[in-house]
Amino acid sequence: MLLYNTPLAPNPRRVRIFLAEKNVTIPIRDVNLMAQEHKQGPYASVNAFEEVPALVFDDGATLTESVAICRYIESLHPEPPLFGRDVRDQAFVEMWQRRVEFRLFTPVALAFRHSHPAMALLETPQLPQLAEHQRPRAQQMMRFLDRELASRRYMASDEFTIADITAIVAMDLTKLARVEIPDDLHNLARWRADVSARPSVTP
Amino acid sequence: MLLYNTPLAPNPRRVRIFLAEKNVTIPIRDVNLMAQEHKQGPYASVNAFEEVPALVFDDGATLTESVAICRYIESLHPEPPLFGRDVRDQAFVEMWQRRVEFRLFTPVALAFRHSHPAMALLETPQLPQLAEHQRPRAQQMMRFLDRELASRRYMASDEFTIADITAIVAMDLTKLARVEIPDDLHNLARWRADVSARPSVTP
Repeated sequence: MLLYNTPLAPNPRRVRIFLAEKNVTIPIRDVNLMAQEHKQGPYASVNAFEEVPALVFDDGATLTESVAICRYIESLHPEPPLFGRDVRDQAFVEMWQRRVEFRLFTPVALAFRHSHPAMALLETPQLPQLAEHQRPRAQQMMRFLDRELASRRYMASDEFTIADITAIVAMDLTKLARVEIPDDLHNLARWRADVSARPSVTP
Repeated sequence: MLLYNTPLAPNPRRVRIFLAEKNVTIPIRDVNLMAQEHKQGPYASVNAFEEVPALVFDDGATLTESVAICRYIESLHPEPPLFGRDVRDQAFVEMWQRRVEFRLFTPVALAFRHSHPAMALLETPQLPQLAEHQRPRAQQMMRFLDRELASRRYMASDEFTIADITAIVAMDLTKLARVEIPDDLHNLARWRADVSARPSVTP
């Protein structure tokens, strides 16, 4: 297997953290988005959507979508479980993974793509109004998560899961996306410090 | 278990089709979004995000997110498999489910929410520019899917899966969202006629 990666992009980071938590190593090849490598040459034929990451199997099949890649790795390396321990736990981990993805990760990523000068070549046209529209949504979700984190250690339960990976990557993108983190969210700050101290997450 | 549902909303329809494909019945209670029932009374305490569907367990725990609900039902009722047959198949079904969700279902749903007069109470503020921005994205994905469907019967493989459910619900929302379906997409039209003939999908 070969994993196509871009060091600074948020989605490949989700997969790299997941692999580090599993203590699994896969050969990695970097794709330079800024040099438009995803639009030309060999990579454009790897992923029709010209996005990273992509996991290429030995027979040439290509799996994209970070969460699909992570779930496949989970099935090969079940320990420690990052998608939940049993059927019911798995359902709630998926719920939280999706809530965090759609209400925190996506708004922060959209604010970044539609406002940061470095994204002007990748997101055409950039819509500053869209970035503006997404920032309060991300902040509203941070407030919600802060209340939730009053009663448990991590996003989905007292165990670290894929939902925490999506959330920490989103939080770490807030600066470039110019999404301000309200400074009264003490539970969220405690969670962030906790997760940021994991070797898989430390840059 | 009790499933909160809204007859005309796209997300609950995904779960209803999934249940019908499994030949599973769960007690259903309707929530009238137009009467703002999701913002008041008992439902607001069922789902903090005031969205449907939601699956309430007998012990009171509430599972939201259509795909999380469907996957939980799959774990209780594995046959027929709608998330893939084996580990590798499951990875590609998840990839296609997410591709269809993010590149077809979401743009169509956003175009609907940000342009249809009936949505003015639910989506505030409506951004007509955002609807305009999403329509060509949905059409671009339809063209991509049409090419893919030249070589297989369904979205992920030759078997009907959750990716087809997400896709047919999106296609059936295009009219209200005013997303025009290019009329030269013959493979997509063949797929749509095929899927629409299933008893689970026929309204």
